[in-house]
Amino acid sequence: MSSEPEVFTLPARRGRAIRLGTGEAIKIINTHGSQVVDTWVFSAEDLTEFLSNEHMRPTLGKLWPGKGDVLITNRRRPIMVMEEDTSPGRHDTLMAACDNYRYGLLGCTEYHDNCTDNLHAAMRQIGLEAPECPSPLNLWMNIPVGADGVTGWGEPLSKPGDHVILRARMDCVVAMSACPQDILPINGAACQPTEAHYMILDRRS
Amino acid sequence: MSSEPEVFTLPARRGRAIRLGTGEAIKIINTHGSQVVDTWVFSAEDLTEFLSNEHMRPTLGKLWPGKGDVLITNRRRPIMVMEEDTSPGRHDTLMAACDNYRYGLLGCTEYHDNCTDNLHAAMRQIGLEAPECPSPLNLWMNIPVGADGVTGWGEPLSKPGDHVILRARMDCVVAMSACPQDILPINGAACQPTEAHYMILDRRS
Repeated sequence: MSSEPEVFTLPARRGRAIRLGTGEAIKIINTHGSQVVDTWVFSAEDLTEFLSNEHMRPTLGKLWPGKGDVLITNRRRPIMVMEEDTSPGRHDTLMAACDNYRYGLLGCTEYHDNCTDNLHAAMRQIGLEAPECPSPLNLWMNIPVGADGVTGWGEPLSKPGDHVILRARMDCVVAMSACPQDILPINGAACQPTEAHYMILDRRS
Repeated sequence: MSSEPEVFTLPARRGRAIRLGTGEAIKIINTHGSQVVDTWVFSAEDLTEFLSNEHMRPTLGKLWPGKGDVLITNRRRPIMVMEEDTSPGRHDTLMAACDNYRYGLLGCTEYHDNCTDNLHAAMRQIGLEAPECPSPLNLWMNIPVGADGVTGWGEPLSKPGDHVILRARMDCVVAMSACPQDILPINGAACQPTEAHYMILDRRS
């Protein structure tokens, strides 16, 4: 009964999606310490309801959630609780998922792996079609913001093995992408995207 | 030829939408000085392409646009330029349009006018259906942000008659809502939503 839950790999530059029942949780592990994981949460009942940063911020009263905070959907309902966070708690809700357009603007002339396509591929891998790519909760992404509103591209403040536990407040689908950004230092100064890991906690069935 | 363009009213608590050709512009006037105007811009060719705050911020390098800044779509293309801004230049891109769910959380037990419904009604009024309610550019909305990420609900810094000119970089549809928020002081300490006005500049036909 109390066997350890399986550890799954979120491969570098790739996405994965899993279903989670109410009360179940996902533990997302920053295995190598400086990998940003773009994270989306959709209601299992209706994929057009999802974790929405712009709807969450008014309730949260701050730019990014921390331990104990409730994550809110575009219908202003709780979908997750950030139950645990062993990192310094710096995440991002400001920046869209990277996409091929973005890498074009950064000078790439050929296709570049990107979080937007990773979301859609991950959802299809479990038989679902994401209705859009919502603004993700970018775990461990460190975007400094000045009082004048100026933003920067920081390196993650997390360390190897840091983890976040998100517990479902409704039946939902969690999608993650190990961000393939290798031009800006958001995945650490080496600009070297790495794998991350995840576990499902308190699985009911 | 050089007759003054017509001044249109954006009634208090209501929305309006207009079509704008490439090179044409809209002047939005904060007539009474402290009215927030939620503003959306959709590509006329495909309404699923629209001004997207989360896609604009990475390019902008700051939380809100100012004079001379280019507004970016969810396909990372320029859709508008903020050509003029006579206010202190404080706008908001962080907070979702208010909706009936939001007013429910603020204690309202009956229907409350809201920017989300205003967007949809305004678009229908010109024969269009908004595919969703994107995170709006909230003109004159003053959301102070601390370096710790904590946000507040400020009063507008604008004065009566302040205006913004947005010039179209592609054929587009502009929708506006005179925000009906009368519980938080974002429309001024009196919590009294007012009308605003707008004009179309350099109309080609």
